[in-house]
Amino acid sequence: MSVELASRMAEMRTSEIREILKLTQRPGMISFAGGMPAAELFPVERVARVTEEVLARDGYRALQYSTTEGDPALREAIVERMNQVLGTDVRSDEILITSGSQQGLDLSGKLFLDEGDVVLCESPTYLGAINALRAYRPRFVEVPTDDEGMVITELERRLAENDRVKLVYVVPEFQNPTGHTWSLERRQAFLEVIARHDLPVLEDSPYAELRFEGAAVPSLKTLDTNGLVVFLGTFSKTFCPGLRVGWLAAERALRERYVMVKQGADLHTSTLCQRQVAVYLELFDLEADIERIRDTYRRRRDIMLRTMEEAFPPGIVYNRPQGGMFLWVELPDGTDARKVLERSLEQNVAFVPGSSFYPNGGHENTMRLNFSAMPEERIRDGVRRLAQVLGEVLEEAGEGAVGAEVPAAAGRTLGR
Amino acid sequence: MSVELASRMAEMRTSEIREILKLTQRPGMISFAGGMPAAELFPVERVARVTEEVLARDGYRALQYSTTEGDPALREAIVERMNQVLGTDVRSDEILITSGSQQGLDLSGKLFLDEGDVVLCESPTYLGAINALRAYRPRFVEVPTDDEGMVITELERRLAENDRVKLVYVVPEFQNPTGHTWSLERRQAFLEVIARHDLPVLEDSPYAELRFEGAAVPSLKTLDTNGLVVFLGTFSKTFCPGLRVGWLAAERALRERYVMVKQGADLHTSTLCQRQVAVYLELFDLEADIERIRDTYRRRRDIMLRTMEEAFPPGIVYNRPQGGMFLWVELPDGTDARKVLERSLEQNVAFVPGSSFYPNGGHENTMRLNFSAMPEERIRDGVRRLAQVLGEVLEEAGEGAVGAEVPAAAGRTLGR
Repeated sequence: MSVELASRMAEMRTSEIREILKLTQRPGMISFAGGMPAAELFPVERVARVTEEVLARDGYRALQYSTTEGDPALREAIVERMNQVLGTDVRSDEILITSGSQQGLDLSGKLFLDEGDVVLCESPTYLGAINALRAYRPRFVEVPTDDEGMVITELERRLAENDRVKLVYVVPEFQNPTGHTWSLERRQAFLEVIARHDLPVLEDSPYAELRFEGAAVPSLKTLDTNGLVVFLGTFSKTFCPGLRVGWLAAERALRERYVMVKQGADLHTSTLCQRQVAVYLELFDLEADIERIRDTYRRRRDIMLRTMEEAFPPGIVYNRPQGGMFLWVELPDGTDARKVLERSLEQNVAFVPGSSFYPNGGHENTMRLNFSAMPEERIRDGVRRLAQVLGEVLEEAGEGAVGAEVPAAAGRTLGR
Repeated sequence: MSVELASRMAEMRTSEIREILKLTQRPGMISFAGGMPAAELFPVERVARVTEEVLARDGYRALQYSTTEGDPALREAIVERMNQVLGTDVRSDEILITSGSQQGLDLSGKLFLDEGDVVLCESPTYLGAINALRAYRPRFVEVPTDDEGMVITELERRLAENDRVKLVYVVPEFQNPTGHTWSLERRQAFLEVIARHDLPVLEDSPYAELRFEGAAVPSLKTLDTNGLVVFLGTFSKTFCPGLRVGWLAAERALRERYVMVKQGADLHTSTLCQRQVAVYLELFDLEADIERIRDTYRRRRDIMLRTMEEAFPPGIVYNRPQGGMFLWVELPDGTDARKVLERSLEQNVAFVPGSSFYPNGGHENTMRLNFSAMPEERIRDGVRRLAQVLGEVLEEAGEGAVGAEVPAAAGRTLGR
């Protein structure tokens, strides 16, 4: 390839997860790596029924071009669900149907970011957002984040230090990768700071409806009184991801700009897929489906945590998310999760090293584990094998750290 | 909306066509404005059969996330069709499935264009490409184009005058908006120039299979021996647009970069829609469908041309495209097609003024007429009404131009 590419291409990389996911195709692999929903819960037969209905009812329309904004009935149904489930107060002319919520990220980059602008994000944050936004060449400034959300004093400091902050990106509910959920207090304090700086916020919320326990916390969109929060939603985790139907909810004038940007990007999202979701919501009980998903994922989380308690060597810290699809593991300082991954792949167990989720790197001692995609027995089996690998790696590291005869290079290896 | 947007947003406009298309929703409107395929030819029942088959065969897979590259069976089928129908020599690892070929334009902008880079394009060119690429802030340099394609001496001159040309965008087959097709000689000369400058070419080819008459001309991709041509294809015009399934074919290393860019944009195109197209191609005869589309569009073109011959006032120039969906009309110098549109909308006839298709404006005396979307009687009726309006506008213009008592302002109006 000899042709010249745009400067942005020098910074864009194939996602590390993508490479790991290729390996997980190997037969026998137990994967905690991807972020796949449990396919066995997809309502395949009902999708067939719905498609039949859509095509019988308005087949020519379902196969034709349609408006960029998206199917009116689907937008109405989304508004109804959002206002009921999340307690928002949105209207259908504030909704834009997107090709998955991933597209909402790309459109937001296009809408808000010039080269060199600053995006504030949690630390760590969703890798797909880093990849989508990176195309617009911003600088990512990570705001230290604890298990209640962004640390407000740290947020204020970053805002004071950077005069080109144009966008704040957050996943306040069962975050990918950590599984953390922001507390109500933190959300309120966050929105106060945001309002003072008049900054747009992307609230990426694919997991909010997957709460297994505990009380729901209002979304940022629900709490926002200044029209600053753009909410990204999706049917990928509550229905099925293969249709690529998501949405964004933004203040009306801003939604108009999003429509303009989407028009250039792909004209509109699949008319048929939109109609399928709309008619599914009309004919079937999505809440009951979601309840089934929650039950399954809760059991999977529990078996993962229980096996970790039983089998993991001491000195490893992990959390107990109240919902979502992921949990987060911190190994002792100096342990390299990539080295753990190499060994665990030999044992047919995959996960994603946590450093991928830090836009500016570091944190090599962290791991993201997905618990939604594998059946319970395989989770138990996989965690046991992983525990075995961790035991070996930590033991070797311990020997390296205290061994008198270890050359200096080995010490360096630990921290890479 | 008080938040700050990216600089690019100052240049982005809602497409004029979009506004006109809203008006065409009015009952009774005869629209030559959009670029809609004839919905009545969509194989609705067969799509239902195919969906049933896809879901029965591999429903869980069809509703799950899939790879960015696209469904392997679909890519194989596309390769087979391309190599057979167009005489290309592409392989499935050179194909990326896109969300309509519109997405291929957006991805290309992201891949090739820095702010201030130059895009060379035909004059006029496809509006959707202007809108997609404009987001990357290039300068559009129009290359004078006659009915055989870009004028090569003019192309050479533009290349000599501009040192930041990064991309050449062309629609060599039944172009949108003019309906023109490049001659073989022009294609060969074009590719020689391109090879000398080592420039990537986007060959946007949604209409190539809609040839009603005359001999097919090899695509640029077929003739290219330097891996410089990126071919954009789509099922929107040969199958149905509502599924949003298109593809691009690019030299392997370049395709890899496209995959990276698409991953950030929307992860992948609807798995279900891809499977639907793949299984349709397996179970049914798309060539027979296309033959039916060709027959219908040829008859519609013929009735449009025949009525134009009968009813249009003298002094109006238009072409007779050998395929596709559009024809191009040039009114006498100084006539404003927007004024014609205002009047014709009152008569419930819509079209798109041609100046929209010139990235740098001008050419207000041109019009694009679509002949694919309306049944024959409505085409006849609509062209007659349009002819009436044209007669009136030209008569008034003639009076204005020669009338002794017309104030100066009226003369200015003519040229606006």
